[in-house]
Amino acid sequence: SALQELKDTIKPVIATQKVSMEKIEVKEKITPEKETIETLLPRVRSLRMHISDVLEKDLDIAYIAGWIESKMKIGKIIFAIIRDGTGRIQTVIKKQDNEELYHHIEETPLESFVFIVGAVRRDERAPGGKELKIQEYYVISKSSELKVPLIQLGTSSLPVRLHYRYLDIRRRTMRTVLYLRSRITHYVREFFMKEGFTEIHTPKIIGTATEGGAELFPLLYYGREAFLAQSPQLYKQMALNAFERVFEISAYFRAQPYDTPRHLSEFWSIDAEAVLFGLDDLLETLEKLIHYIKKKLEKNESQHLKTLNVSIPKLPEKFPRLTYSEIIEQLTNEGVSIKWGDDLSAEALHHIANEVKSPFFIIEWPATVRAFYYRPDPYNPKVTRSFDLMWPTGHKSLPIELSSGGERINDIEILKRNLQERGLFPESYGWYIEMFKYGMPPHAGFGLGLDRLVQAILAIPNIVDTIMCPRNPKYLVP
Amino acid sequence: SALQELKDTIKPVIATQKVSMEKIEVKEKITPEKETIETLLPRVRSLRMHISDVLEKDLDIAYIAGWIESKMKIGKIIFAIIRDGTGRIQTVIKKQDNEELYHHIEETPLESFVFIVGAVRRDERAPGGKELKIQEYYVISKSSELKVPLIQLGTSSLPVRLHYRYLDIRRRTMRTVLYLRSRITHYVREFFMKEGFTEIHTPKIIGTATEGGAELFPLLYYGREAFLAQSPQLYKQMALNAFERVFEISAYFRAQPYDTPRHLSEFWSIDAEAVLFGLDDLLETLEKLIHYIKKKLEKNESQHLKTLNVSIPKLPEKFPRLTYSEIIEQLTNEGVSIKWGDDLSAEALHHIANEVKSPFFIIEWPATVRAFYYRPDPYNPKVTRSFDLMWPTGHKSLPIELSSGGERINDIEILKRNLQERGLFPESYGWYIEMFKYGMPPHAGFGLGLDRLVQAILAIPNIVDTIMCPRNPKYLVP
Repeated sequence: SALQELKDTIKPVIATQKVSMEKIEVKEKITPEKETIETLLPRVRSLRMHISDVLEKDLDIAYIAGWIESKMKIGKIIFAIIRDGTGRIQTVIKKQDNEELYHHIEETPLESFVFIVGAVRRDERAPGGKELKIQEYYVISKSSELKVPLIQLGTSSLPVRLHYRYLDIRRRTMRTVLYLRSRITHYVREFFMKEGFTEIHTPKIIGTATEGGAELFPLLYYGREAFLAQSPQLYKQMALNAFERVFEISAYFRAQPYDTPRHLSEFWSIDAEAVLFGLDDLLETLEKLIHYIKKKLEKNESQHLKTLNVSIPKLPEKFPRLTYSEIIEQLTNEGVSIKWGDDLSAEALHHIANEVKSPFFIIEWPATVRAFYYRPDPYNPKVTRSFDLMWPTGHKSLPIELSSGGERINDIEILKRNLQERGLFPESYGWYIEMFKYGMPPHAGFGLGLDRLVQAILAIPNIVDTIMCPRNPKYLVP
Repeated sequence: SALQELKDTIKPVIATQKVSMEKIEVKEKITPEKETIETLLPRVRSLRMHISDVLEKDLDIAYIAGWIESKMKIGKIIFAIIRDGTGRIQTVIKKQDNEELYHHIEETPLESFVFIVGAVRRDERAPGGKELKIQEYYVISKSSELKVPLIQLGTSSLPVRLHYRYLDIRRRTMRTVLYLRSRITHYVREFFMKEGFTEIHTPKIIGTATEGGAELFPLLYYGREAFLAQSPQLYKQMALNAFERVFEISAYFRAQPYDTPRHLSEFWSIDAEAVLFGLDDLLETLEKLIHYIKKKLEKNESQHLKTLNVSIPKLPEKFPRLTYSEIIEQLTNEGVSIKWGDDLSAEALHHIANEVKSPFFIIEWPATVRAFYYRPDPYNPKVTRSFDLMWPTGHKSLPIELSSGGERINDIEILKRNLQERGLFPESYGWYIEMFKYGMPPHAGFGLGLDRLVQAILAIPNIVDTIMCPRNPKYLVP
């Protein structure tokens, strides 16, 4: 894989045609004599072009700035791939054309940041179809020799990659994943805005351990104890007092001791809540959202998906809906013994996920395994009007629990009773309980893990690689 | 003001024309007999229309769900304003038409959430130009009697308003501010994406107190000490290793003991950073951004600005650029004694802001008052290539410090020296310092307070009213 990346990156092109320098229109002449970084920088700023533009536009000469990703010497010719934030391009220098420049380039360490003025030559064999014949060359920020060559980082152990995360994200794979993460985030927001949802900003520091204290990180807040929010749940319900439909995309925090490829201690969550939504509205919204993202990615980001060698699986328009009880029955038939009322682990669901293949909903969860605010089914109060969305990941991997949600209790008496049945005290829920006195409408909502969504869609084995700087029990740095 | 809001809300319309019920096409007949919330809800979900749609579309009959915002009895007619997340509409019932319904409505407390089927009647005098003659009426979620009537909350003290924040955000003013906050956030993102910036997600929990420990909230992270990030500074610089230009909009945390109308302990920040940007690029980006937001708000949100009685001041295309030294000189002339090298408070800048009137930049700040990562001006190393953006708020109020930023040091030796000169140890900066060994390009960036931006643009006196649930030394709840 590292070898393949190396091969993809370097495809040397032997010069076959002579470029006439007279034809080149120079925007501004840079004289290498007495050039310092201070005199150079303003001109680099005004002249440099993005590599993506150089590849697209019809130019005779190009001014680029970027990192030297790789160099290859063939005879007395150096081929160097230069990378900036927008793309990569092949550059070339012959010893016979400029011996001093040739040696200068030869001696520059990989991953140095350089400014190059080059004559553009079309060549089908070069990556992107173009090659720059180096005319001028400046090292703007010289790199030390890499302790782990960039090309080997991809196959290095996770601790090594995270140690050098600032280099690791220069690798094409990691950059593409992080770029697609930003696009997925954008498409999710676009979807919710089209559907009439208003973006909200809820607090991340909370005063009381409302939703089960065990998973909360405590912090010191002006001499008082406070906690990091594990979700915007209570606050997005509050926001329905102002808006019809609300959503938020933000970081949340769970002090779970899990070091698995599915858990982050600081994770990003997509949260939505809507007045008068019922369970069916939630499921339909999620189906529409996932199809929307898939369509947008395939339409606008196909090149990046190709870079990752990812094709998003064909998804049914409607995802299958299995009840919790059906799942228990099926698991029992398969020899997995789970008591009705217990939670279902990804391990337990493994076989079912492999049979269903598409994403599927599990509905009608028992109240015993759901948070206190889930609405009991009025026709069968043992179960709640709630769901989980599972995403199968293939034969050998566990399915991903992508989203959880449901209808919420909006009746203060049922809410109080529900708390009491769990040994909790309504009095300690302060404003949250009080709120339900004042005409709280029926509503429903869900949380959808953004990191897990990226992981599912891009088929990334370990969730730490969906985000630049992951946090879990092991990793607090970088 | 509360009186004005009351007057704006209730403009009773005396029925002058008779509506013929035969003309009304009923989508589905709802029979009030034996109706329970369970049988009613699915039908409410399928039938209800948003009030904004009822006001816009040409309908004979409307199905709405919302809160009773106000009621007024004139003779034997009740006028009730119903509000949902999209707007408000006047409804009317005459005692003579349905005495039972009349009493039912008369007895329902304000802020109850109700479902109404009504005949639509055009009437210029009603808010929105339409009125609903109530045909059917269901209380979906009955409110208790309000301890503070909604209409009075607006003039109540801040502690009372925050105690009832879930009601406070039902008020037109607060809802509009929070809505415009969501729009401003959207326009900011739209701007950065158009400018080729990639959205990033940086960690909010950090391992070491890098940028001055005094302002950090400590937390317990799996038995270790950790801190809440006060900005994405070091991480957005890291992200430049992958992308050309990056931005993030997220919550950050500062343990500042300030209880002022300008400070939040949990604030939202707009952060941007770009490779090869210089100071001028930053200032131009901010000017363009603020003009972009202004244009978008005036074009798309004029109705909401009107609700708040806000008109965004005329802004010069270029904001004045004053050097720190010029400011010191001017302050000295005005009798404010500040030593060169000291920080400038908003109080000190008050007079200057009143003279300049438009937003203005203060540039060339001494290194002594800037963080260690700001780049010294190579031609005058006593000052840095940095800026603050100030927003004057009028004669009596202090200017708002909206944004700070500048060029960053990208040379590891200068960075180390800078840390040592401040009595800090480069060794404790781990990956951050190491990163500069490997071809770190020149770059620059800024942070822009989102809450303060909302405060400045919408002229909101206290920053706690730019966000649903503010956090400061006083407020940790709701």
